[in-house]
Amino acid sequence: MNTDFNLDILTGELEGSQLYETLRTIRDMEGYYHDESAREGLNPQTPVYRVQAFQPVPEGTEGGLFFGTTFVYPGLVGDEYFMTKGHFHVNGSRSEYYVTLAGVGALILMDEGRRTTVTPMKPGSVHYIPANTAHRVANVGDSVLAFMACWPSDSGHDYGSITSEGFSARLRKVNGNATLVEEA
Amino acid sequence: MNTDFNLDILTGELEGSQLYETLRTIRDMEGYYHDESAREGLNPQTPVYRVQAFQPVPEGTEGGLFFGTTFVYPGLVGDEYFMTKGHFHVNGSRSEYYVTLAGVGALILMDEGRRTTVTPMKPGSVHYIPANTAHRVANVGDSVLAFMACWPSDSGHDYGSITSEGFSARLRKVNGNATLVEEA
Repeated sequence: MNTDFNLDILTGELEGSQLYETLRTIRDMEGYYHDESAREGLNPQTPVYRVQAFQPVPEGTEGGLFFGTTFVYPGLVGDEYFMTKGHFHVNGSRSEYYVTLAGVGALILMDEGRRTTVTPMKPGSVHYIPANTAHRVANVGDSVLAFMACWPSDSGHDYGSITSEGFSARLRKVNGNATLVEEA
Repeated sequence: MNTDFNLDILTGELEGSQLYETLRTIRDMEGYYHDESAREGLNPQTPVYRVQAFQPVPEGTEGGLFFGTTFVYPGLVGDEYFMTKGHFHVNGSRSEYYVTLAGVGALILMDEGRRTTVTPMKPGSVHYIPANTAHRVANVGDSVLAFMACWPSDSGHDYGSITSEGFSARLRKVNGNATLVEEA
């Protein structure tokens, strides 16, 4: 297969013949925000984030790597920023890099002890996501947040524990500022 | 440890407190060019390429990832472009991504059957280096070629077989054009 493609370094857009595209809308985010009635008040078709991914080897291949760009749109569900669902890797030892290309955001990490931290993302910021660490990204700005990612092809995505238990803290807009608020 | 650093998206320069820096000069490239007398005629201190690398986990860690930028300077040794030494991964299943950020270059890949191919590199081009494939980059332009890379922390670098046997073909400037020339 063709193993080359193109990245627009300033926008994050990938261009190539073998890209997977995933769109997550407000409908897809049921259960992820603390204010479910605010979510239900939004148009369910509203895009929250989009992922373009290049997967040159089958999912689960040891030693391979996947590459992608995620675009998180600006917006709020109640006082909570538009964000990705977030996940652990099924294969917990597998790590990942994020490189921010456009916009401003926040990388929300939670370790296995459910300690949650937040790190600012801005163009050029590079973030290593260590083993056994759940990761989620929120857009805290007014424009599209774009970041590229590289992760092992045998990482797997464990959304289940995030769906059921969530993160231990949420990034909410409090008095105009992005604030990490511990869950009650 | 701190797991965040910064990348200048336009130049490739990394900025952070825990970066490894490697400089390869003409002196370090003994035996890599077909015209050894041309190499000996150059100032041995001349930089050929420089690598900045971020290694958040110990070399050999399964599941971890390393990140780096390589800067290949413009120049020729005889009719052969300034290039990286090139290597296989010791752990042959381990793959890698290159993302070109500045300049124009050529990615030279050689599989285990010693079949060598060349792919153009330009800003925004992304290249997947599959398992069991030696990789080398040449600068075919007049300015610095910068590309970022992401690879597993248990890849290892096997320079030995390249030192002893080389690639099966070389990128040489023939009538002004970068041309892949099979070794005799």
